[in-house]
Amino acid sequence: MKKVLLLIMDGLGDVNSSELYGRTPLQDESLDYFKWLSKSGETGLMTTIDYGVVPGSDVAHLAILGYDPKKWYLGRGVYEALGAGIELKKGDIAFRVNVATLKNNKIVDRRAGRNDYGLKELFSLIDGIKIEDTEIILKHTVEHRGVLVLRGKNLSPFVSENDPHKEVKPKEIKPLKKDKSSEKTAKILNELLKKIEKLWGNHPINIERKKKGIPEANYLLIRGAGTLSKKPISFEKKFGLKACCIAGGALYKGIAKFLGFDIINVPGATGDKNTNLDNKISYAIRATKDYDFIFLHIKATDSFGHDGKCKEKLEFLKKVNDTLKKHKIHLHFDLIIITGDHSTPCIKKAHSSDPVPILIYGINTRKDKGLFNEIDAALGTYRIKGLDLMNIILDKINKKEKYGS
Amino acid sequence: MKKVLLLIMDGLGDVNSSELYGRTPLQDESLDYFKWLSKSGETGLMTTIDYGVVPGSDVAHLAILGYDPKKWYLGRGVYEALGAGIELKKGDIAFRVNVATLKNNKIVDRRAGRNDYGLKELFSLIDGIKIEDTEIILKHTVEHRGVLVLRGKNLSPFVSENDPHKEVKPKEIKPLKKDKSSEKTAKILNELLKKIEKLWGNHPINIERKKKGIPEANYLLIRGAGTLSKKPISFEKKFGLKACCIAGGALYKGIAKFLGFDIINVPGATGDKNTNLDNKISYAIRATKDYDFIFLHIKATDSFGHDGKCKEKLEFLKKVNDTLKKHKIHLHFDLIIITGDHSTPCIKKAHSSDPVPILIYGINTRKDKGLFNEIDAALGTYRIKGLDLMNIILDKINKKEKYGS
Repeated sequence: MKKVLLLIMDGLGDVNSSELYGRTPLQDESLDYFKWLSKSGETGLMTTIDYGVVPGSDVAHLAILGYDPKKWYLGRGVYEALGAGIELKKGDIAFRVNVATLKNNKIVDRRAGRNDYGLKELFSLIDGIKIEDTEIILKHTVEHRGVLVLRGKNLSPFVSENDPHKEVKPKEIKPLKKDKSSEKTAKILNELLKKIEKLWGNHPINIERKKKGIPEANYLLIRGAGTLSKKPISFEKKFGLKACCIAGGALYKGIAKFLGFDIINVPGATGDKNTNLDNKISYAIRATKDYDFIFLHIKATDSFGHDGKCKEKLEFLKKVNDTLKKHKIHLHFDLIIITGDHSTPCIKKAHSSDPVPILIYGINTRKDKGLFNEIDAALGTYRIKGLDLMNIILDKINKKEKYGS
Repeated sequence: MKKVLLLIMDGLGDVNSSELYGRTPLQDESLDYFKWLSKSGETGLMTTIDYGVVPGSDVAHLAILGYDPKKWYLGRGVYEALGAGIELKKGDIAFRVNVATLKNNKIVDRRAGRNDYGLKELFSLIDGIKIEDTEIILKHTVEHRGVLVLRGKNLSPFVSENDPHKEVKPKEIKPLKKDKSSEKTAKILNELLKKIEKLWGNHPINIERKKKGIPEANYLLIRGAGTLSKKPISFEKKFGLKACCIAGGALYKGIAKFLGFDIINVPGATGDKNTNLDNKISYAIRATKDYDFIFLHIKATDSFGHDGKCKEKLEFLKKVNDTLKKHKIHLHFDLIIITGDHSTPCIKKAHSSDPVPILIYGINTRKDKGLFNEIDAALGTYRIKGLDLMNIILDKINKKEKYGS
């Protein structure tokens, strides 16, 4: 069986920036291995969902992995919970959460400095408690991120979020449907928030964080409600490829788990800029022994985009380039696909609908004129949607049946 | 709010022509401002409707402005009538009309030399008369063009046209459905044509036109029947952008009006080659005070295409280039889109399905390798359909919500 590596760098796509002298991070000449791979293979531009549609990472990954998000997007909380190792039960409502910093009842940092110092301890104060008849499950994942699951009777995912997405007063959580279960769920969440403010507010962890100059972890932003209402046919059954996932972030592990991938936990894979790339890539190479399809996710590119840090995004890309080169990944896989799930332009500090460059290296590929960056990929072969990619991969590895005769 | 300019040059796209030494009009080096804008922004090719579909200007504009023509194309007469300032009533049947030259019962010029000399007077002989119980409304718009509306009981848009689209005998207008209203409508139109031949044939205006060497205005070609059977949600409600239209041609004003745009009437905006470009662009810039989205339409490019006048098309493009440059439009808008609604290749003298080049300059854009002409735009970012454009525009100006999270 052919061995396929799908490397997705989150929020990879960018636009030209004056900070980089009018170039995009990927255009930098220092990224020599990307350039070499793309010179030896195929390139193009991929619009993950559709033109002008700004994708979240969840729907983008579903599409790239060949599952139509119109059918399989169940709310982000579901994938985050699965990725955090929570076995979701019927009726569970799952949310993604951010630890945030509240000051005078205003959000002053939506990500509490992206710093996880003491968060495990703070989360353990809440995890397992009950509000009314409902069990509260709260797990930390990476950086400021975590998962909240409500387990009990008559709960509903139809509640609003408290995240104002700006540095202002948090919103009250409200039922989005006029039924008892939505009202109950909103009430429980609002009570939970009160409890968190009380338990975390003057906790020694926050006194320590303050001393260290880290924003306090005294509030929780709750969003992305979802419920595991159905399960798809597994990736292995659908495509005939035994598949595994290597990722730091819970969301990506969760999506992979949802699709029946095995999850390979890699020491030091943190889902942030300090992630151990060396380990992740070594493990990916080693996984070819047991798997045909290795989905490797790297998160920090997106975070640098959100934070508007162009130069840091480039520096991190250089690390990825160098680590892939060091491991000579082209010798270890029959087919390598490198791309992003969406663009997160540093000058926009948010996701955008701009297409991402895509690189396909290995068997049955052409050597087109494109290079692996947003500008020169336009000279390459592809203008595709996310849902097209798995079909192209299957044909490259000779696993596609003919249509017609 | 960000300010957007959408400049559509009608029939802009062309193919390489020996008259221009193997280049397209847009490839000419003299079009320096287009080139500069495209070097600083994004480019690509847009297929307004679908591959191989030859679009009329009406359906093309609907699609580009984000309204699916499958749903919102009600017959060209409707938009022409709205653009001519006629308030259509329920049951009205609207047609676009051309003044033509008839000789020995054969059409010898389908556009009577594109010359409007005396047409207002000839139209006034007909406007307001009654045939049977049906009121005849006939308004001149620009050049040889006008609008005919039948207002009365039991009328139908299901009638054939009399335009043979060649220089031969005009066709008889026939009912396209076997019902009384279609039969009645055809009968009224045929009577109207007899009346026109009688009233215009030896009219002093035509004696004068003859003297001046202008083809006689002695016949009317009637086509594009439509009826205002439904109204769409307004552009402002749909996209959250306060929008205005600057155009000479009635069709373009009419489509804009149909979508709820305000129409800005500009002195000297004639919709032909002598249009006052300077005024149109000045007014477009001034409109940014009151509007977020300015749709500026320029017609003559299409007319030169239809007439097979390559060099004149280029000369006119040079005028547009120079006037945009003189006004430094890039300083007045946050986002500028320049494109065509379809191609009208001079060697074809008719619309074609060839994609049109598209240029997107301003915030959140990449600097791709494409240029603003049919050939080099292929090196750029986009391969889109007309209906994709508004979504891309909305994302560029940060007005798109995320799908997923």
